[in-house]
Amino acid sequence: MISEKMIGMVQNSSAIRAMFEEGKIMAAKYGAENVYDFSLGNPNVPAPAEVKEAIEEILGEEDSLMVHGYMSNSGYEDVRQAIADSINKKFETQFRQENILMTVGAAGGLNVILKTLLNPQDEVLTFAPYFGEYRSYVSNFDGILKAVPANTVDFQPNLEAFETMITPKTKAVIVNTPNNPTGVVYSEDTIKKLAQILEDKQKEYGISIYLISDEPYRELAYDGAEVPYLTKYYKNTIVGYSFSKSLSLPGERIGYLVIPDEADESELIIGAANVANRILGYVNAPSLFQRVIAKCLDAKVDVEYYNRNRETLYNGLVKAGFSCIRPEGAFYLFVKSPVENEKEFCEAAKKYHLLIVPGSSFACPGYVRLAYCVSYETVTGALPKFEELAKEYGLS
Amino acid sequence: MISEKMIGMVQNSSAIRAMFEEGKIMAAKYGAENVYDFSLGNPNVPAPAEVKEAIEEILGEEDSLMVHGYMSNSGYEDVRQAIADSINKKFETQFRQENILMTVGAAGGLNVILKTLLNPQDEVLTFAPYFGEYRSYVSNFDGILKAVPANTVDFQPNLEAFETMITPKTKAVIVNTPNNPTGVVYSEDTIKKLAQILEDKQKEYGISIYLISDEPYRELAYDGAEVPYLTKYYKNTIVGYSFSKSLSLPGERIGYLVIPDEADESELIIGAANVANRILGYVNAPSLFQRVIAKCLDAKVDVEYYNRNRETLYNGLVKAGFSCIRPEGAFYLFVKSPVENEKEFCEAAKKYHLLIVPGSSFACPGYVRLAYCVSYETVTGALPKFEELAKEYGLS
Repeated sequence: MISEKMIGMVQNSSAIRAMFEEGKIMAAKYGAENVYDFSLGNPNVPAPAEVKEAIEEILGEEDSLMVHGYMSNSGYEDVRQAIADSINKKFETQFRQENILMTVGAAGGLNVILKTLLNPQDEVLTFAPYFGEYRSYVSNFDGILKAVPANTVDFQPNLEAFETMITPKTKAVIVNTPNNPTGVVYSEDTIKKLAQILEDKQKEYGISIYLISDEPYRELAYDGAEVPYLTKYYKNTIVGYSFSKSLSLPGERIGYLVIPDEADESELIIGAANVANRILGYVNAPSLFQRVIAKCLDAKVDVEYYNRNRETLYNGLVKAGFSCIRPEGAFYLFVKSPVENEKEFCEAAKKYHLLIVPGSSFACPGYVRLAYCVSYETVTGALPKFEELAKEYGLS
Repeated sequence: MISEKMIGMVQNSSAIRAMFEEGKIMAAKYGAENVYDFSLGNPNVPAPAEVKEAIEEILGEEDSLMVHGYMSNSGYEDVRQAIADSINKKFETQFRQENILMTVGAAGGLNVILKTLLNPQDEVLTFAPYFGEYRSYVSNFDGILKAVPANTVDFQPNLEAFETMITPKTKAVIVNTPNNPTGVVYSEDTIKKLAQILEDKQKEYGISIYLISDEPYRELAYDGAEVPYLTKYYKNTIVGYSFSKSLSLPGERIGYLVIPDEADESELIIGAANVANRILGYVNAPSLFQRVIAKCLDAKVDVEYYNRNRETLYNGLVKAGFSCIRPEGAFYLFVKSPVENEKEFCEAAKKYHLLIVPGSSFACPGYVRLAYCVSYETVTGALPKFEELAKEYGLS
């Protein structure tokens, strides 16, 4: 009786979330301290103190009707201006508040811009491995998501394959850097080449192709890695940002879109995205947290905590005989499965109470993802288990 | 270059919001105290003190990772249980936490349930006059919204017309009581007849028809009016609730769906709605405010403030010669336009700095809506202007 499309969606529903539920069951059975759950990207570093201070300040000083009330569907003007100023200062850009649209997290922002742009059967490209939810978001608006095959050498985008896959039906390209699930940061060289390909194809086909940059992990970069700001390399870039990871507020659903003046049909897109935000039922990004993040634009979670996990886990896994790309950002490690069928490997890992996600969930079988946004004790406790698992597979 | 569907949506974009923007411009020009803006349903009674106390308590006592973190896409289990208990106590129902799904306001909830239920070309019925956004929400999932013509005698649903409009393609019916824009509360007698018609048609066509009850105004009822709880009258009822008005938190985007066990395919719908909440990009209802409302289920805004506005405005308008139905709930008055083209009347009202919304926005031309969620001073200040307007139209 329900929607046929939803029946398919329920059947394919996120393997990651399923594992999250499985983790809760295992924790109840064996004790939380004996389960090493690397399945979900749920930050374990608390929000910085500035968040609580900001909430208290706002409740103490600002008018309750304004703080909890409706505002423009795009968000409070002063909040959007503060964000524009902050981006401009960091990246030498020239955004105005009109370029910023407050959204219900990055997921809300992606849905708003895809609703704004897509006609049925329009094609959206992304690079494997990729966050599996993109498939649902594009399908929400009857677009077709096409995944460029992975470059498993260094997990930079496979630009040769990308170039051949662009067609006159290509409306958008989604990139995610620092990347979930690989932790790779797309290099400036990659971005420049990607931008050139897009420019050439736009000219060749006489179309606009929008580059949608999904940036929930922008602030999580290690070893001084630079994460290029994409609007500076390609004018049809639209940025989707989230405070879920930078301020550890994933449950609060707060983020924004940047729609630059330089983008083709910018004014039309800004107007339509505002309407899309309303009619998709978001109406506006949660009001109190709009005001909170405006006061916390220079705050940051303790990235060093994730960095220590990264170092320890990466070194431990390599020492145990596993092979994986050294991540420069986000909080994920993408490890090569010792057997072709990585789902079998994930099942074997469960014997050691290790919960890891198959690469198939990211359109990249043969690999597994470990989310290391966990306690340091989970990392150090898990390493001996990974060593046993490696032995089982004859890796050491 | 943007979505063709969105181009249409932008063109038809809410007249109410447009007037809201116009109100801001007029206020800047003439001074806010000289503009009588009855255009938007933005509560002017502040959130009850319990909200601030709850926030402070939660920030002081609960773990920041839990308060701002991801939970099940359906919401925190304890919050859902608290809501189920509260409904059960008030209405003698038997809901469990599994029947409750936390949503990004009622708008989010309606989108979640429509995505869950609708196949393209499925028909959704609603009763004119109705909240214009329903058209967009149904269109988001390629359904077809059909409006049952208004019964302008007492603005109870026109059940004769309704019965003839149900077809084998009818998947859902949306009702909204207390009603926006009329303020009418659907009587128990109406509900019983509506339920009987639906039961009969379900049998006749061998289908399930879901009654979606959009209830943001449930707590705003005056003169002791009873607002029947619809799941008790018709088992395929799904309730969409919002705290936007009951706690004056419209910007926070917090509400819930009730999906009863008794509904056909209940388990499938509950599972699919959970997935829909995720893939529509909401992911989950804002986390802090989930926890806040669980502590405020017995709190309520100062309804007496709205009641005084209602009495004063209704009596004043009738005395001035206008004709309108006496509202029992919500914070709207639906006034008969003295001329057939009510848009012309709204334009005339602007000369007196009175901002009111044409009934066409609610599929009911010939009437205008006044939102009286304004200060008492706005009401008393506006009445002499309405008297002048009435004289212009020869009403007194």
